[in-house]
Amino acid sequence: MSSTVGVLKRNSVAQAIEEISGLLGDRLSTSQAVRDQHGNDLTWNEGMAPDAVAFVQSTEEVVQIVKICGTYEVPLIPFGTGTSLEGHISAPFGGVSVDMSQMNEILEVNPQDLDCTVQAGVTRKQLNEYLRDVGLFFPIDPGADASIGGMASTRASGTNAVRYGTMKDNVIRVVAVMPDGEIVRTARRAKKTAAGYDLTRLMVGAEGTLGVITEITLKLHGIPEAISAGVCPFPDIASACEAAIATIQMGIPVARIELLDEIQVKACNAYSDLGLAETPTLFLEFHGSDTSVAEQSELFGSIAEEWGGGPFDWATKTEDRNRLWQARHDVFWAAIDSMPGKSAMATDVCVPISRLAECVTETRKDLDETGLYGPIVGHVGDGNFHISLFCDKDDEAEVTAVYGLLDRLADRALAMDGTCTGEHGIGYGKKKYLVKEHGAGVDVMRSIKQAIDPKNIMNPGKILPT
Amino acid sequence: MSSTVGVLKRNSVAQAIEEISGLLGDRLSTSQAVRDQHGNDLTWNEGMAPDAVAFVQSTEEVVQIVKICGTYEVPLIPFGTGTSLEGHISAPFGGVSVDMSQMNEILEVNPQDLDCTVQAGVTRKQLNEYLRDVGLFFPIDPGADASIGGMASTRASGTNAVRYGTMKDNVIRVVAVMPDGEIVRTARRAKKTAAGYDLTRLMVGAEGTLGVITEITLKLHGIPEAISAGVCPFPDIASACEAAIATIQMGIPVARIELLDEIQVKACNAYSDLGLAETPTLFLEFHGSDTSVAEQSELFGSIAEEWGGGPFDWATKTEDRNRLWQARHDVFWAAIDSMPGKSAMATDVCVPISRLAECVTETRKDLDETGLYGPIVGHVGDGNFHISLFCDKDDEAEVTAVYGLLDRLADRALAMDGTCTGEHGIGYGKKKYLVKEHGAGVDVMRSIKQAIDPKNIMNPGKILPT
Repeated sequence: MSSTVGVLKRNSVAQAIEEISGLLGDRLSTSQAVRDQHGNDLTWNEGMAPDAVAFVQSTEEVVQIVKICGTYEVPLIPFGTGTSLEGHISAPFGGVSVDMSQMNEILEVNPQDLDCTVQAGVTRKQLNEYLRDVGLFFPIDPGADASIGGMASTRASGTNAVRYGTMKDNVIRVVAVMPDGEIVRTARRAKKTAAGYDLTRLMVGAEGTLGVITEITLKLHGIPEAISAGVCPFPDIASACEAAIATIQMGIPVARIELLDEIQVKACNAYSDLGLAETPTLFLEFHGSDTSVAEQSELFGSIAEEWGGGPFDWATKTEDRNRLWQARHDVFWAAIDSMPGKSAMATDVCVPISRLAECVTETRKDLDETGLYGPIVGHVGDGNFHISLFCDKDDEAEVTAVYGLLDRLADRALAMDGTCTGEHGIGYGKKKYLVKEHGAGVDVMRSIKQAIDPKNIMNPGKILPT
Repeated sequence: MSSTVGVLKRNSVAQAIEEISGLLGDRLSTSQAVRDQHGNDLTWNEGMAPDAVAFVQSTEEVVQIVKICGTYEVPLIPFGTGTSLEGHISAPFGGVSVDMSQMNEILEVNPQDLDCTVQAGVTRKQLNEYLRDVGLFFPIDPGADASIGGMASTRASGTNAVRYGTMKDNVIRVVAVMPDGEIVRTARRAKKTAAGYDLTRLMVGAEGTLGVITEITLKLHGIPEAISAGVCPFPDIASACEAAIATIQMGIPVARIELLDEIQVKACNAYSDLGLAETPTLFLEFHGSDTSVAEQSELFGSIAEEWGGGPFDWATKTEDRNRLWQARHDVFWAAIDSMPGKSAMATDVCVPISRLAECVTETRKDLDETGLYGPIVGHVGDGNFHISLFCDKDDEAEVTAVYGLLDRLADRALAMDGTCTGEHGIGYGKKKYLVKEHGAGVDVMRSIKQAIDPKNIMNPGKILPT
């Protein structure tokens, strides 16, 4: 493999590790267990271990490591919490995994400006616990308690994105160590700027292939005065999707609108004891003043009714809401629990919402015809949905069936002017779809990668197909 | 000048023009009047005429012209409506201005997905007139009736940005002709994606230096059920800014919150016959349901009172609102009218909103001490403000004084962790501030420019300092 990317100089790796070890002491680990853990993500993408793991504590340490890796042309793979889903953290060419978990300080909160600056290893739950006292919150919630650096690098989103946007919209700037060891702060702290190329958005979603993000300045939001939430059953996927489209079109500023298909509802009933009717169901949440959440909830109720759904039961009690959303966040675990002994693969696509019902319905049919078990859950306000797919990794036919389904799913989304991934990223798992999706745009991406990282030391083998 | 960028080959320009002329016939103009008009923007930045102006009608024609310009290494400057403010359209190295005004078709509107696709020459007013019948609107409004392509290229924003974001947030994708003549569609039509580098955000704000944007897919928004608007006087700049900060912090989803200082109010009273008290004043607009705009307006009224402002008079009648916002959009003309016989220069900076009062107050003091006339108006919810500056271009001392003030203004904004431009862009007028603002980030920008446009044919001499 190494010859195709020109990054592997086996004898150099040992030298690089020795120098980094001199810098970090026992914060540089070469133990097999630590290496394996850092090469494996949450799914059954093949995890390839790095040669060593460096636990860094400062941007300056990252600079030193980048310079050493540059000298010896050794790959460097940034690592947050290892919760990504497309092999982003795997080390197909070996090298050094740079673990950011010890860079977990919240550096600054500016309540007047609704922003904060954190180190890359801070997790979203840690941040929100810290912020609670000042009445602010950070809305992006990709299920797992991921690190902010990882979330920026994969352009994460989650259930709140329909109202608050994705990481693309909520990162004001990053501090990154570039492949030449330069520290770049991509923007000032002002809410907007027209000063030059948008380096912030270039680093967000680059999956560590252009540099190592070490600090992030984020937009924050006031904790809403009132929150209401509820569940609403529908006779079928199509009517649930149509109700979601109507909700968005009417300008109801819904904070969350999540679709669970009947198979996912069944799994959640079993796992979280929800007692829901086993039919396609929307989970919703509204943020605002008391008056406005009541108004939003009632408006949604009448839209649901128009599309044959309901009754829409909504509650404003915190414990009821928490139980509901805990169940929503546990869908992947519920799915795993419903299919014991099999390995799980989580995938996602995103299409224009007008095509969502069609895309989900066709995919459900495809799953049934292929004989695969796959609960579906969707951020339906954004046209984004997920399937948890299961197979016995030793059963070649089943593995082939899963990959066939994934290929057809990507093709289906692309044919509807959608994307092969709404929020999981490309990693190495989805590289093969990139040219289909972007055409000549991939050449532009390649030329940017080549210009910024000519030695291809930054997370090689990710995003760009060879 | 030419030797420093290596793009000017005088004898090649004639050949390029001849070939383009063969392609476009009389849609290629070399008349002095047309050339002068295409080199000059709205302010007194020196306008340098291109050698020819090409009126294109399709992406394919742009491809041909880009290829010809590439062959002869002749500069190519995209031109929308000529309303930019930092010399973006000027041709310091000659070349061909590519006028997009005949590419003005609205290609597709998808009401279910709240998006549309337009050719680059469509103007924002043209689009909104077209959309009115489907109950949708496009919110970005940079004063002038700019083209959507120009707005994307300069990362424009305006009065609605506090609620609806800037062009960065509202462009889903562009179709661009890259310097090698390849057509790149930067994304699919899905609302979000995590598939590869964010080429959309790279092209937005690149001011035509990386390629020519020929089509844009935009987010649209439902026309609000109810709108209320009003004006609120304050005793001083600081209290007006504090009231704006409190409004944002409380999560009131204000659609517009604009500050006019007393000098600007005076100019507007004279120009638009507003009859306002001549004191710092906020212009506001709220969007939502009837209940919600009433609630928002009342909440703001009590915040204003807390900060010594008011009374806050608000109205929901369309004609009252229109008169108010016409006056707001006419501030630049009002300023020009208040200082006859002088040339105008519009500038902007943007700072974290916690620093806005301080930045505006210091700038007002600087203006007074320098003896310059300069009404101030601000998108105060974003920390962004503008000054209209005037001078007699033949009075060397006055010109020097203006440039000194501009330098101090940029330094002041940067010292407050702000940007040298919130929405006007860099063009060639603000190139000198870019390194101060971005440091090593400018090297990254240069390497991207070099990689994508190695012959430097795309709007050379803009953004990147030499």
